[in-house]
Amino acid sequence: MSAGNLLYAQSGGVTAVINASAAGVIEAAQKSRKIGKVLAARNGIIGALREELIDTSLESAAAIKALRHTPGGAFGSCRYKLKSLEESREQYQRLIDVLRAHDIRWFLYNGGNDSADTANKLSMISEKLGYPLQCIGVPKTVDNDLVVTDCCPGFGSVAKYTAISIAEASLDVASMCESSTKVFVMEVMGRHAGWIAAAAGLAGKKATDAPQIILFPEVVFDQAKFLAKVKAMVEQIGWCSVVVSEGVRNAEGKFLSEVGSTDAFGHQQLGGVAPMLAALVKQHLGYKYHWALPDYLQRSARHAASKTDADQAYAVGKAAVEYALKGMNAVMPVIRRQCAQPYRWTVEPAALSAVANHEKKMPPRFIRGDGFGITAAARRYLAPLIQGEAPLPYGDDGLPVYVKLKNRLLPKKLAPYRIADK
Amino acid sequence: MSAGNLLYAQSGGVTAVINASAAGVIEAAQKSRKIGKVLAARNGIIGALREELIDTSLESAAAIKALRHTPGGAFGSCRYKLKSLEESREQYQRLIDVLRAHDIRWFLYNGGNDSADTANKLSMISEKLGYPLQCIGVPKTVDNDLVVTDCCPGFGSVAKYTAISIAEASLDVASMCESSTKVFVMEVMGRHAGWIAAAAGLAGKKATDAPQIILFPEVVFDQAKFLAKVKAMVEQIGWCSVVVSEGVRNAEGKFLSEVGSTDAFGHQQLGGVAPMLAALVKQHLGYKYHWALPDYLQRSARHAASKTDADQAYAVGKAAVEYALKGMNAVMPVIRRQCAQPYRWTVEPAALSAVANHEKKMPPRFIRGDGFGITAAARRYLAPLIQGEAPLPYGDDGLPVYVKLKNRLLPKKLAPYRIADK
Repeated sequence: MSAGNLLYAQSGGVTAVINASAAGVIEAAQKSRKIGKVLAARNGIIGALREELIDTSLESAAAIKALRHTPGGAFGSCRYKLKSLEESREQYQRLIDVLRAHDIRWFLYNGGNDSADTANKLSMISEKLGYPLQCIGVPKTVDNDLVVTDCCPGFGSVAKYTAISIAEASLDVASMCESSTKVFVMEVMGRHAGWIAAAAGLAGKKATDAPQIILFPEVVFDQAKFLAKVKAMVEQIGWCSVVVSEGVRNAEGKFLSEVGSTDAFGHQQLGGVAPMLAALVKQHLGYKYHWALPDYLQRSARHAASKTDADQAYAVGKAAVEYALKGMNAVMPVIRRQCAQPYRWTVEPAALSAVANHEKKMPPRFIRGDGFGITAAARRYLAPLIQGEAPLPYGDDGLPVYVKLKNRLLPKKLAPYRIADK
Repeated sequence: MSAGNLLYAQSGGVTAVINASAAGVIEAAQKSRKIGKVLAARNGIIGALREELIDTSLESAAAIKALRHTPGGAFGSCRYKLKSLEESREQYQRLIDVLRAHDIRWFLYNGGNDSADTANKLSMISEKLGYPLQCIGVPKTVDNDLVVTDCCPGFGSVAKYTAISIAEASLDVASMCESSTKVFVMEVMGRHAGWIAAAAGLAGKKATDAPQIILFPEVVFDQAKFLAKVKAMVEQIGWCSVVVSEGVRNAEGKFLSEVGSTDAFGHQQLGGVAPMLAALVKQHLGYKYHWALPDYLQRSARHAASKTDADQAYAVGKAAVEYALKGMNAVMPVIRRQCAQPYRWTVEPAALSAVANHEKKMPPRFIRGDGFGITAAARRYLAPLIQGEAPLPYGDDGLPVYVKLKNRLLPKKLAPYRIADK
């Protein structure tokens, strides 16, 4: 007779390796033989509220193993934040009802700082209500903005994809610049912090290597300085590659993408800071340009994942189960850097309350004095995170073999539930 | 005493595997011991006109070998088309002067149908002028629009990248669609023909697999039909992935990207058909969307190259030298499909005149009746081209190890030359 079931849920934007964390959770739970069923909420916390619980024991061992190399969220994720205990008391209560109905004693929530907050609150309310529940966070976010942990699973892979992509595209630009494109602009994710943009800097070692210019959300955009730098690079080497974070703002604090669209082009949602900058270059310097916006391609690119990242994602899933079995509550396994070179890391528990609702910004010492690149300190921090390749199986058709789970739901035991203001 | 030198030049948009052709040329020439030096024109035909000739014998064997996995154009390429013999007679004459000055007896031109035309004309004029020269084309283009050949080196890799990317991004979309993005639009290259867009179709086997909608330049855009299909897919499975070729036009024959920018958003060069379609979906159906435009990332993505493609690129380079040594002139090695399944191909010579100035369109039988996908015939044609992975070395830094050649120029022997109307 087991001690109850475990519920795992994915939250927020998915990554190339969030399913590796799921595999870590499920395999560790099965191996322990101390946990009944591992259930997964369908589409994240929404599914938990709706009592849409996937029975992962119906999946084959091979399918669970294949999660380790399958991007996206295998059980579905969602953008849905529970509010404070006061405002959302009824929803927390509903969660407890669902957990109780299915004998769930462990809740593992795989997400960012919002999710850490939710898991923390759920742990508090369960105690208040006298329902025995352990809540464990599992870290995930391409934004790399969780505090306490050295880095966030999901980030290393988008970092690697970004560095590879700008290196490759820049070889293209360099070889054609004599008679074609001279300026290439690639826009990357990162509305609040420039971690992904910074990772692009790993592609270049010298000042003339691509990307010659990185624009961070942390640095106010200075049009004259930017154009002068582009011009200087084109005059020196014939071309210039720019990596720009979607979150770059002007001196008035407005996103550049919005400035572009509202001032001159009429339609905000069309935006994208890359085309706006490219047009600026054309207008002021007359150079031929191209721009790219990989969008979801960057955060789902499992085919170019970092081994470090994939390993860490699996490890935090596994550790979450170990903590659960040790009786720990309201904690999250985080990555601790033991040594930068060679990179050695361990997983250790941190209080959810220490992680919840904080945001890790890039330290100013990671950004070069001229604002257009990364420092040696940033390089030391970032470099290990993209190390190693994480090979994945390809089929005879030349495509990666990604798993699609059966995702069969448990029969419901409670009355239907309607989620307000979803 | 050798029989003279060989000049190799890259032309037009570069690819993930054009340097593999260069490696094929250089290694085959060295191995033959019948060719003096292999020279490479700096930045394509422009360098040949300017007498900027790179001495590839100064590169190490390891560097030449590494070309096989390095994207971009290692010697530089250009967009510069020589006109007719009458209009550009002086330029053809100049080329002959340069070739004569450096004892060049073989000219290998690595490009698309324009380049085949130039090589063909150069062969004619050299004969007229009594200069002994053999001109051989080496096929290359991501557009896959050369006739005679089964496919074009460069296309298979962009095809593979495109299919992988839409598969991965769609896993992301599918897992979030309940509460976030429902429609994802990815724009791919192909102004005149939908080959790259068609390749995206390899990612899906069933009608509900991504991409659920492909928009081809060959099919007139029908807004009502498009929106109805998007709506139907979202209602059926919750989300919809769209791959759109940059060359899609409306009933008036206008590029959709231009329609979007001139009608509503003011600035044409900002364009991109992906954001235009995404905005259309939002406006008419209200769905949350994301869009991606990988641009140069797609044609430089050597990290996701097709083995078939990389092998073919090397093989045509090697074959070009073999033809040269057999005394052939005005020919191009092309790929001949011997068998579709299992895919077997050979390389054989075709007359440059048969390839020059023609454009291979997608046959109508490759496009599904509803205009939104590929047929089984298209799948049979395309599938082999993305088969196999072409691994590449990664460094300790987690990045592909791409080679940068020394590219030392031979001393000039002629007077400086100014290129008109570049």
